[in-house]
Amino acid sequence: MGYPLQTFEELKLDESATPLLAEFTDAIGEEYVLSKDEDKVPYLTDWGKRFKGNALAVLRPKNTSEVAALIKICKHHRVPIVPQGGNTGLCGGATPDASGRAVVICLRRLNQIKALDLENATITVGAGAVLKHVQEAAVLKNRLFPLSLAAEGSCTIGGNLATNAGGVQVLRYGNMRDLTLGLEVVTANGEIWNGLRGLRKDNTGYSLKDLFIGSEGTLGIITAATLKVFPLPRTKLTVLVKVTDVASSIALLQQVQKVCSADLTAFELISNRAIELVSDRFVLAQQLLQDQSDWLVLIELSSMDSEDKVRLDLQNLLMDAMDSKLVLDGIVADSIQQSKAMWGIRETIPEAQLQLGNVIKHDISLPISELSDFIQTTNARLKESWPDIEIIVFGHVGDGNLHYNIVGINLEVSTLLENRRSQINQLVHDQVYLHNGSFSAEHGIGQAKVTELTERKSSVEMALMRAIKKGLDPLCIMNPNKVILRDPD
Amino acid sequence: MGYPLQTFEELKLDESATPLLAEFTDAIGEEYVLSKDEDKVPYLTDWGKRFKGNALAVLRPKNTSEVAALIKICKHHRVPIVPQGGNTGLCGGATPDASGRAVVICLRRLNQIKALDLENATITVGAGAVLKHVQEAAVLKNRLFPLSLAAEGSCTIGGNLATNAGGVQVLRYGNMRDLTLGLEVVTANGEIWNGLRGLRKDNTGYSLKDLFIGSEGTLGIITAATLKVFPLPRTKLTVLVKVTDVASSIALLQQVQKVCSADLTAFELISNRAIELVSDRFVLAQQLLQDQSDWLVLIELSSMDSEDKVRLDLQNLLMDAMDSKLVLDGIVADSIQQSKAMWGIRETIPEAQLQLGNVIKHDISLPISELSDFIQTTNARLKESWPDIEIIVFGHVGDGNLHYNIVGINLEVSTLLENRRSQINQLVHDQVYLHNGSFSAEHGIGQAKVTELTERKSSVEMALMRAIKKGLDPLCIMNPNKVILRDPD
Repeated sequence: MGYPLQTFEELKLDESATPLLAEFTDAIGEEYVLSKDEDKVPYLTDWGKRFKGNALAVLRPKNTSEVAALIKICKHHRVPIVPQGGNTGLCGGATPDASGRAVVICLRRLNQIKALDLENATITVGAGAVLKHVQEAAVLKNRLFPLSLAAEGSCTIGGNLATNAGGVQVLRYGNMRDLTLGLEVVTANGEIWNGLRGLRKDNTGYSLKDLFIGSEGTLGIITAATLKVFPLPRTKLTVLVKVTDVASSIALLQQVQKVCSADLTAFELISNRAIELVSDRFVLAQQLLQDQSDWLVLIELSSMDSEDKVRLDLQNLLMDAMDSKLVLDGIVADSIQQSKAMWGIRETIPEAQLQLGNVIKHDISLPISELSDFIQTTNARLKESWPDIEIIVFGHVGDGNLHYNIVGINLEVSTLLENRRSQINQLVHDQVYLHNGSFSAEHGIGQAKVTELTERKSSVEMALMRAIKKGLDPLCIMNPNKVILRDPD
Repeated sequence: MGYPLQTFEELKLDESATPLLAEFTDAIGEEYVLSKDEDKVPYLTDWGKRFKGNALAVLRPKNTSEVAALIKICKHHRVPIVPQGGNTGLCGGATPDASGRAVVICLRRLNQIKALDLENATITVGAGAVLKHVQEAAVLKNRLFPLSLAAEGSCTIGGNLATNAGGVQVLRYGNMRDLTLGLEVVTANGEIWNGLRGLRKDNTGYSLKDLFIGSEGTLGIITAATLKVFPLPRTKLTVLVKVTDVASSIALLQQVQKVCSADLTAFELISNRAIELVSDRFVLAQQLLQDQSDWLVLIELSSMDSEDKVRLDLQNLLMDAMDSKLVLDGIVADSIQQSKAMWGIRETIPEAQLQLGNVIKHDISLPISELSDFIQTTNARLKESWPDIEIIVFGHVGDGNLHYNIVGINLEVSTLLENRRSQINQLVHDQVYLHNGSFSAEHGIGQAKVTELTERKSSVEMALMRAIKKGLDPLCIMNPNKVILRDPD
């Protein structure tokens, strides 16, 4: 059954690396071929220091042609390639393995903002452009590039594309795939595919763009992209409301969408336990949090209407929701400061959580209709098995994405937690699958989840993915053992 | 250069078809294996009678398992398969070739509305469900399934997916790919891939869904899909305005988007010549059309706000636009009847055009910033070469999609037109490429444009597409010679 799974061709490396390094130097200049240990170090471990690896060299090409030249050399010598952007990934997708046979190709010098076409509402940028710089380039022309996530000050567009990044505004604007109209890619053959189209309708053959996006550098290297921009919203309004349970938050989501439609740009659920973690730092959270069993919802609207109009609509909506006991209490931000304080509660949770010691994180998504039952069932099962753990839940509920994290409050539990990691993961992800969800909503697979991917996906789906990998990267030099494991030799 | 292009395996067919038909009958029942000429006829030509073919049999399975059983039989005997839905395609993608060696697999019996999940805002349907029935099932629960196109009364969801259908509301809701969260597909191996997920974030490996969508049945058969639904808009408002030229319409588009954001659901441009075709039937068009050089724009807003509010916003916007001479005149529909009359103008053009005789149609898209220059340049070049032709332009300008059609008004020209077809296509598509556009925006490739696809796409892009085709359909039994030509034997 499935497609025949032949062994990928064995990697061959010359005895001595010296001639290879000379070829790299000829292609991109000595300054940009880093082969000394101290130069390579920052590229050999991920941002969270969870994954460590080694590499023959770190290569820093300046443009697409140089990337193509490097891939051709690597292909000739069967050298594995690990593409890297801002190195802020959470699954080790940009960290090489320990063998030291791979090269890291760092794309950060391809950081040009190439064009901003106001009429077409598109921006074309190099893969190495930092997300924040792209946002800023758009704002300078009164446009919004809506992708927004914690690492935006250092992550790159290439990494955002490779992992199909999500973040807080997916509800309105979609994820990175939805925001992308065209790509430039260097294939595993070292050829340049110019697919930098700025078209909203183009049905000419297979959607290669959608295939490269989210493939985590395993099919080729994305070197540039044409992305959508939007008019800047005139009004932004943030609201923090208290609800009794997850089901109420979902019912509220339906009501807000019915009234506000596409103006709803964020709908974040925060569990009582998560709020407690940060309540000492936020008066607002204290103010709302009287009953320990309550949950908070952070809502953000972005509108072309006047602030008065949006505020009035929202106040009416909240009054109706309070009348029907869906919402217990709520605060509409009356200044940018208060809005920032509300987002502060949400954004401080990951940091506060870390201070408790070990954290077992799950980046999951579920059909919105399954969220309440999933949380209830999974909380109960975890507590049954390990009564001493704490469960911290928060996330982008508007698109079904939960950060479902387990912590141990006291030191002993925190230490114990590590031993329980695989059992806890198993229990949580089993429940995710029973509720038709995904065990990787926005962080991708990398090396962290590659074994689990193989176990969780059907053999039919894995066979389709392997057929694509083998078709586009027959020598398996593109980020091997990320997303898809190499066949055993 | 490129990937090695080996010859797809040669098709082999038993000398006699009888044992093969017996196998099909065993799999799905005699009643659903149509092998008599009179039974097959409706499936062997397309809706527009432009393409004619032949087939060994037409097979009408009732569910996914039966589709899988049929593909396994076809695979074993190397019988080419042509999947077919409502048979309303415009490029012959669902019409078999003349050899009579293929079977048509008609999906229309897989027409169940399987589930409507209100909380998750998704509807799950069989590939054979008629688009109109899906729209109606959503409306029954106060939801909107926004895909809307001329053939909606007979086209099927499977065909919409296979061709990544577009239509008039892409501006707000996206095309079929954007509207789809999950798919069920039977692979070219006859295996069932259950990817019917209702998730808005799921980064677990390659996006197979996006690859199958738009692949026109050449990689597998889509048997079911989970699609997005939206709250029904409270207010719909239609406006018809007159502008002097294409550039003004683009400037107006920017202004409407700035004020109305996602509430803008349609922005259709209609050239003066196109309006003339239908003006005798529409008082409104006559009323607005005094100067023959003017163009019309049909705008539709869908909003959760009250009609009064939307009307006021729009009137203010139009007054500003008239003050700045961007808009010459305009009518805001004050009844559903008037709104229908406005859409009537737009929707009657294709029919009116046909009555003029031969029509050479182009379904093209361009970056919005290139539209004006493209139309000016291409009109001028065409008129230079063939002064006796007429150019009819209309389309979904909000997403850069034009229907750019050439007609000959008198009989002689109409006859002559046929002889000039390839030269005219060449000229128009050359201009499309010079302006970074696409020569197939929403109709796909099928057999009509397969040769041109090969000529227009870069060898790198074609090699990537061929590698995927060979990886997923190594025997080339799935809709051969559609989208991608088989290698010469």
